[in-house]
Amino acid sequence: MAIDFKKHIASIQDFPNEGIVFRDITPILQDPKLYKAATHELAEYAKSRGADVIVGPEARGFIVGCPVATELGLGFVPARKPHKLPRKTVKAAYDLEYGSNSLEMHVDAIKPGQKVVVCDDLLATAGTLRATKQLIEDLGAKLVGAAFYIELPDLKGRDLLPDVDIYSLVQFHGA
Amino acid sequence: MAIDFKKHIASIQDFPNEGIVFRDITPILQDPKLYKAATHELAEYAKSRGADVIVGPEARGFIVGCPVATELGLGFVPARKPHKLPRKTVKAAYDLEYGSNSLEMHVDAIKPGQKVVVCDDLLATAGTLRATKQLIEDLGAKLVGAAFYIELPDLKGRDLLPDVDIYSLVQFHGA
Repeated sequence: MAIDFKKHIASIQDFPNEGIVFRDITPILQDPKLYKAATHELAEYAKSRGADVIVGPEARGFIVGCPVATELGLGFVPARKPHKLPRKTVKAAYDLEYGSNSLEMHVDAIKPGQKVVVCDDLLATAGTLRATKQLIEDLGAKLVGAAFYIELPDLKGRDLLPDVDIYSLVQFHGA
Repeated sequence: MAIDFKKHIASIQDFPNEGIVFRDITPILQDPKLYKAATHELAEYAKSRGADVIVGPEARGFIVGCPVATELGLGFVPARKPHKLPRKTVKAAYDLEYGSNSLEMHVDAIKPGQKVVVCDDLLATAGTLRATKQLIEDLGAKLVGAAFYIELPDLKGRDLLPDVDIYSLVQFHGA
Protein backbone atom coordinates (compact mmCIF):
# COMPACT_ATOMS: atom_id res chain seq x y z
CA MET A 1 0.00 0.00 0.00
CA ALA A 2 1.27 3.45 -0.87
CA ILE A 3 2.56 5.49 2.05
CA ASP A 4 0.70 8.71 2.79
CA PHE A 5 3.73 10.96 3.22
CA LYS A 6 1.56 14.06 3.44
CA LYS A 7 0.21 13.30 6.87
CA HIS A 8 3.78 13.10 8.21
CA ILE A 9 4.70 16.63 7.12
CA ALA A 10 4.22 19.23 9.86
CA SER A 11 2.71 22.57 8.80
CA ILE A 12 3.79 25.56 10.87
CA GLN A 13 2.00 28.89 10.45
CA ASP A 14 4.04 32.11 10.11
CA PHE A 15 7.51 30.52 10.00
CA PRO A 16 10.04 31.87 9.36
CA ASN A 17 8.00 34.99 8.49
CA GLU A 18 4.38 36.06 8.87
CA GLY A 19 2.15 34.74 6.15
CA ILE A 20 4.38 31.76 5.34
CA VAL A 21 3.22 28.22 6.10
CA PHE A 22 6.40 26.22 6.65
CA ARG A 23 6.27 22.56 5.58
CA ASP A 24 8.54 20.62 7.91
CA ILE A 25 9.90 17.26 6.71
CA THR A 26 11.70 16.34 9.96
CA PRO A 27 8.93 13.91 11.05
CA ILE A 28 9.65 11.90 7.88
CA LEU A 29 13.40 11.89 8.50
CA GLN A 30 13.19 10.69 12.07
CA ASP A 31 10.91 7.77 11.11
CA PRO A 32 13.17 5.00 9.70
CA LYS A 33 10.55 3.50 7.36
CA LEU A 34 9.36 6.84 6.01
CA TYR A 35 12.84 8.27 5.34
CA LYS A 36 13.94 5.13 3.56
CA ALA A 37 10.70 4.96 1.56
CA ALA A 38 10.87 8.63 0.52
CA THR A 39 14.51 8.14 -0.47
CA HIS A 40 13.57 5.09 -2.51
CA GLU A 41 10.80 6.95 -4.36
CA LEU A 42 13.19 9.73 -5.37
CA ALA A 43 15.89 7.19 -6.28
CA GLU A 44 13.50 5.35 -8.60
CA TYR A 45 12.68 8.66 -10.25
CA ALA A 46 16.37 9.63 -10.63
CA LYS A 47 17.12 6.20 -12.11
CA SER A 48 14.26 6.57 -14.60
CA ARG A 49 15.81 9.84 -15.75
CA GLY A 50 19.19 8.21 -16.31
CA ALA A 51 20.98 10.27 -13.64
CA ASP A 52 24.79 10.09 -13.55
CA VAL A 53 25.08 12.30 -10.48
CA ILE A 54 22.84 13.81 -7.77
CA VAL A 55 23.04 17.49 -6.82
CA GLY A 56 21.52 18.84 -3.60
CA PRO A 57 21.27 22.52 -2.63
CA GLU A 58 22.30 23.44 0.95
CA ALA A 59 21.05 22.42 3.45
CA ARG A 60 17.85 20.35 3.21
CA GLY A 61 18.85 19.27 -0.28
CA PHE A 62 21.71 17.38 1.40
CA ILE A 63 19.27 15.49 3.63
CA VAL A 64 17.06 14.61 0.67
CA GLY A 65 19.71 13.97 -1.97
CA CYS A 66 22.62 12.23 -0.21
CA PRO A 67 20.85 8.93 0.52
CA VAL A 68 19.39 8.96 -3.01
CA ALA A 69 22.98 9.09 -4.33
CA THR A 70 24.23 6.21 -2.18
CA GLU A 71 21.13 4.09 -2.89
CA LEU A 72 21.81 4.41 -6.62
CA GLY A 73 25.60 4.16 -6.28
CA LEU A 74 26.05 7.69 -7.66
CA GLY A 75 28.19 10.60 -6.56
CA PHE A 76 26.71 13.54 -4.66
CA VAL A 77 27.55 17.17 -5.38
CA PRO A 78 26.55 19.87 -2.87
CA ALA A 79 25.41 23.27 -4.16
CA ARG A 80 26.51 25.40 -1.23
CA LYS A 81 25.89 28.85 0.19
CA PRO A 82 28.63 31.42 -0.41
CA HIS A 83 32.11 31.00 1.11
CA LYS A 84 31.60 27.38 2.16
CA LEU A 85 33.39 25.59 -0.67
CA PRO A 86 37.17 25.98 -0.45
CA ARG A 87 38.22 25.51 -4.08
CA LYS A 88 37.37 27.31 -7.34
CA THR A 89 33.62 27.62 -7.87
CA VAL A 90 30.90 28.74 -10.24
CA LYS A 91 28.23 30.93 -8.65
CA ALA A 92 24.56 31.81 -9.25
CA ALA A 93 22.23 34.20 -7.41
CA TYR A 94 18.59 33.36 -6.70
CA ASP A 95 15.46 34.72 -5.01
CA LEU A 96 13.75 32.74 -2.28
CA GLU A 97 10.09 32.72 -1.33
CA TYR A 98 11.46 35.06 1.37
CA GLY A 99 14.83 36.84 0.84
CA SER A 100 17.66 36.06 -1.58
CA ASN A 101 20.96 34.22 -1.63
CA SER A 102 23.45 32.60 -3.94
CA LEU A 103 24.78 29.09 -4.49
CA GLU A 104 28.20 27.80 -5.48
CA MET A 105 29.54 24.57 -6.90
CA HIS A 106 33.14 23.46 -7.32
CA VAL A 107 34.20 23.81 -10.96
CA ASP A 108 35.35 20.15 -11.05
CA ALA A 109 32.23 18.81 -9.29
CA ILE A 110 30.44 17.64 -12.44
CA LYS A 111 31.91 16.57 -15.77
CA PRO A 112 30.66 18.09 -19.05
CA GLY A 113 27.90 15.94 -20.53
CA GLN A 114 26.89 14.28 -17.26
CA LYS A 115 23.17 13.89 -16.58
CA VAL A 116 22.15 15.49 -13.30
CA VAL A 117 19.10 15.06 -11.09
CA VAL A 118 18.61 17.74 -8.41
CA CYS A 119 17.03 16.67 -5.10
CA ASP A 120 15.56 19.06 -2.53
CA ASP A 121 12.81 19.17 0.06
CA LEU A 122 10.46 21.72 -1.49
CA LEU A 123 9.57 23.28 -4.84
CA ALA A 124 7.97 26.70 -4.33
CA THR A 125 8.91 29.55 -6.68
CA ALA A 126 11.81 27.50 -8.13
CA GLY A 127 14.45 30.13 -7.30
CA THR A 128 16.84 27.58 -5.86
CA LEU A 129 16.24 25.17 -8.71
CA ARG A 130 16.86 27.84 -11.34
CA ALA A 131 20.17 28.81 -9.72
CA THR A 132 21.19 25.17 -9.42
CA LYS A 133 20.30 24.60 -13.07
CA GLN A 134 22.50 27.52 -14.05
CA LEU A 135 25.45 26.06 -12.10
CA ILE A 136 24.98 22.66 -13.71
CA GLU A 137 24.83 24.18 -17.19
CA ASP A 138 27.81 26.45 -16.48
CA LEU A 139 29.77 23.22 -16.00
CA GLY A 140 28.56 21.84 -19.33
CA ALA A 141 26.30 19.20 -17.77
CA LYS A 142 22.60 18.58 -18.31
CA LEU A 143 19.76 18.83 -15.78
CA VAL A 144 17.59 15.80 -16.63
CA GLY A 145 15.21 16.05 -13.67
CA ALA A 146 14.40 17.53 -10.28
CA ALA A 147 12.83 15.60 -7.39
CA PHE A 148 11.18 17.02 -4.28
CA TYR A 149 9.40 15.73 -1.21
CA ILE A 150 6.94 18.63 -1.49
CA GLU A 151 5.58 20.83 -4.26
CA LEU A 152 3.49 23.98 -3.86
CA PRO A 153 1.81 24.02 -7.29
CA ASP A 154 0.03 27.33 -6.72
CA LEU A 155 3.39 29.13 -6.68
CA LYS A 156 3.91 27.94 -10.27
CA GLY A 157 7.58 27.00 -9.96
CA ARG A 158 7.15 24.56 -12.86
CA ASP A 159 6.02 27.32 -15.19
CA LEU A 160 9.39 29.06 -14.85
CA LEU A 161 11.22 25.91 -15.94
CA PRO A 162 9.05 24.40 -18.68
CA ASP A 163 11.95 22.34 -20.07
CA VAL A 164 12.76 20.64 -16.75
CA ASP A 165 11.17 17.33 -15.77
CA ILE A 166 9.88 17.67 -12.19
CA TYR A 167 8.76 15.04 -9.70
CA SER A 168 7.26 15.55 -6.25
CA LEU A 169 6.07 13.09 -3.60
CA VAL A 170 3.27 15.31 -2.24
CA GLN A 171 1.60 18.57 -3.19
CA PHE A 172 0.08 21.26 -0.97
CA HIS A 173 -2.41 23.64 -2.56
CA GLY A 174 -3.34 27.11 -1.34
CA ALA A 175 0.16 27.94 -0.05
CA MET B 1 41.74 -4.11 -0.37
CA ALA B 2 41.16 -1.22 1.99
CA ILE B 3 40.42 2.10 0.30
CA ASP B 4 42.90 4.89 0.95
CA PHE B 5 40.36 7.64 1.68
CA LYS B 6 43.08 10.04 2.74
CA LYS B 7 44.43 10.61 -0.74
CA HIS B 8 40.95 11.69 -1.87
CA ILE B 9 40.65 14.49 0.69
CA ALA B 10 41.73 17.88 -0.65
CA SER B 11 43.80 20.08 1.68
CA ILE B 12 43.40 23.83 1.17
CA GLN B 13 45.77 26.23 2.93
CA ASP B 14 44.36 29.30 4.73
CA PHE B 15 40.64 28.50 4.27
CA PRO B 16 38.39 29.90 5.58
CA ASN B 17 40.95 31.87 7.62
CA GLU B 18 44.72 32.31 7.57
CA GLY B 19 46.54 29.52 9.35
CA ILE B 20 43.74 26.97 8.88
CA VAL B 21 44.26 23.97 6.60
CA PHE B 22 40.78 23.06 5.38
CA ARG B 23 40.18 19.35 4.75
CA ASP B 24 37.69 19.07 1.89
CA ILE B 25 35.66 15.85 1.57
CA THR B 26 33.87 16.80 -1.67
CA PRO B 27 36.18 14.61 -3.83
CA ILE B 28 34.95 11.59 -1.83
CA LEU B 29 31.29 12.57 -2.22
CA GLN B 30 31.43 13.04 -5.96
CA ASP B 31 33.06 9.61 -6.46
CA PRO B 32 30.28 6.99 -6.29
CA LYS B 33 32.46 4.16 -4.98
CA LEU B 34 34.20 6.28 -2.36
CA TYR B 35 31.04 7.91 -0.98
CA LYS B 36 29.27 4.56 -0.71
CA ALA B 37 32.34 2.94 0.89
CA ALA B 38 32.81 5.75 3.43
CA THR B 39 29.10 5.57 4.26
CA HIS B 40 29.35 1.82 4.73
CA GLU B 41 32.34 2.11 7.09
CA LEU B 42 30.48 4.58 9.30
CA ALA B 43 27.31 2.47 9.13
CA GLU B 44 29.22 -0.61 10.31
CA TYR B 45 30.57 1.42 13.20
CA ALA B 46 27.12 2.79 14.13
CA LYS B 47 25.68 -0.72 13.99
CA SER B 48 28.43 -2.02 16.27
CA ARG B 49 27.48 0.66 18.79
CA GLY B 50 23.83 -0.37 18.73
CA ALA B 51 22.58 2.94 17.31
CA ASP B 52 18.81 3.55 17.32
CA VAL B 53 19.08 6.89 15.53
CA ILE B 54 21.68 8.97 13.65
CA VAL B 55 22.21 12.66 14.40
CA GLY B 56 24.10 14.96 12.02
CA PRO B 57 25.08 18.57 12.75
CA GLU B 58 24.41 21.13 9.99
CA ALA B 59 25.56 21.09 7.24
CA ARG B 60 28.29 18.56 6.41
CA GLY B 61 26.94 16.26 9.12
CA PHE B 62 23.87 15.89 6.91
CA ILE B 63 26.00 14.73 3.98
CA VAL B 64 27.88 12.25 6.16
CA GLY B 65 25.04 11.04 8.38
CA CYS B 66 21.94 10.83 6.16
CA PRO B 67 23.08 7.91 3.99
CA VAL B 68 24.36 6.11 7.12
CA ALA B 69 20.81 6.32 8.52
CA THR B 70 19.13 4.97 5.39
CA GLU B 71 21.74 2.20 4.96
CA LEU B 72 20.96 0.99 8.48
CA GLY B 73 17.22 1.65 8.23
CA LEU B 74 17.38 4.22 11.03
CA GLY B 75 15.89 7.67 11.41
CA PHE B 76 17.96 10.81 10.91
CA VAL B 77 17.80 13.86 13.16
CA PRO B 78 19.40 17.14 12.05
CA ALA B 79 21.10 19.36 14.64
CA ARG B 80 20.56 22.71 12.98
CA LYS B 81 21.89 26.24 13.16
CA PRO B 82 19.65 28.76 14.95
CA HIS B 83 16.21 29.72 13.56
CA LYS B 84 16.08 26.88 11.02
CA LEU B 85 13.86 24.41 12.87
CA PRO B 86 10.24 25.58 12.99
CA ARG B 87 8.96 23.79 16.09
CA LYS B 88 9.99 23.79 19.77
CA THR B 89 13.71 23.12 20.22
CA VAL B 90 16.48 22.56 22.73
CA LYS B 91 19.59 24.68 22.13
CA ALA B 92 23.33 24.49 22.89
CA ALA B 93 26.15 26.97 22.18
CA TYR B 94 29.59 25.85 21.01
CA ASP B 95 32.99 27.18 19.96
CA LEU B 96 34.39 26.31 16.55
CA GLU B 97 38.02 25.99 15.52
CA TYR B 98 37.26 29.50 14.20
CA GLY B 99 34.30 31.46 15.61
CA SER B 100 31.25 30.28 17.58
CA ASN B 101 27.67 29.25 16.95
CA SER B 102 24.80 27.28 18.43
CA LEU B 103 22.82 24.21 17.46
CA GLU B 104 19.16 23.29 17.93
CA MET B 105 17.17 20.09 17.84
CA HIS B 106 13.41 19.60 17.90
CA VAL B 107 12.28 18.52 21.36
CA ASP B 108 10.46 15.49 19.92
CA ALA B 109 13.33 14.49 17.62
CA ILE B 110 14.74 11.74 19.85
CA LYS B 111 12.96 9.64 22.45
CA PRO B 112 14.32 9.31 26.00
CA GLY B 113 16.55 6.25 26.28
CA GLN B 114 17.39 6.03 22.57
CA LYS B 115 20.99 5.28 21.62
CA VAL B 116 22.44 7.90 19.32
CA VAL B 117 25.45 7.92 17.01
CA VAL B 118 26.55 11.34 15.75
CA CYS B 119 28.04 11.54 12.23
CA ASP B 120 30.04 14.49 10.91
CA ASP B 121 32.89 15.20 8.52
CA LEU B 122 35.61 16.32 10.91
CA LEU B 123 36.62 16.06 14.57
CA ALA B 124 38.86 18.99 15.53
CA THR B 125 38.36 20.65 18.94
CA ALA B 126 35.08 18.77 19.45
CA GLY B 127 33.02 21.94 19.98
CA THR B 128 30.25 20.78 17.67
CA LEU B 129 30.26 17.29 19.16
CA ARG B 130 30.04 18.61 22.72
CA ALA B 131 27.06 20.81 21.83
CA THR B 132 25.37 17.93 20.01
CA LYS B 133 25.97 15.66 23.02
CA GLN B 134 24.31 18.22 25.26
CA LEU B 135 21.23 18.36 23.00
CA ILE B 136 20.99 14.56 22.95
CA GLU B 137 21.27 14.35 26.74
CA ASP B 138 18.80 17.24 27.21
CA LEU B 139 16.28 14.99 25.46
CA GLY B 140 17.08 12.09 27.80
CA ALA B 141 18.85 10.03 25.14
CA LYS B 142 22.36 8.54 25.18
CA LEU B 143 25.31 9.32 22.90
CA VAL B 144 26.82 5.88 22.25
CA GLY B 145 29.33 6.92 19.60
CA ALA B 146 30.56 9.55 17.15
CA ALA B 147 31.84 8.82 13.66
CA PHE B 148 33.87 11.10 11.40
CA TYR B 149 35.50 10.97 8.01
CA ILE B 150 38.47 12.93 9.42
CA GLU B 151 40.08 13.42 12.81
CA LEU B 152 42.76 15.97 13.73
CA PRO B 153 44.26 14.17 16.75
CA ASP B 154 46.66 17.00 17.62
CA LEU B 155 43.70 19.24 18.49
CA LYS B 156 42.83 16.72 21.23
CA GLY B 157 39.05 16.72 20.71
CA ARG B 158 38.88 13.22 22.22
CA ASP B 159 40.41 14.44 25.48
CA LEU B 160 37.44 16.75 26.08
CA LEU B 161 35.01 13.85 25.76
CA PRO B 162 36.74 10.92 27.47
CA ASP B 163 33.44 9.06 27.95
CA VAL B 164 32.46 9.15 24.25
CA ASP B 165 33.44 6.38 21.87
CA ILE B 166 34.93 7.98 18.74
CA TYR B 167 35.63 6.55 15.30
CA SER B 168 37.37 8.22 12.36
CA LEU B 169 38.17 6.99 8.87
CA VAL B 170 41.40 9.00 8.49
CA GLN B 171 43.61 11.15 10.68
CA PHE B 172 45.70 14.18 9.80
CA HIS B 173 48.52 15.14 12.14
CA GLY B 174 50.13 18.54 12.51
CA ALA B 175 46.93 20.48 11.84
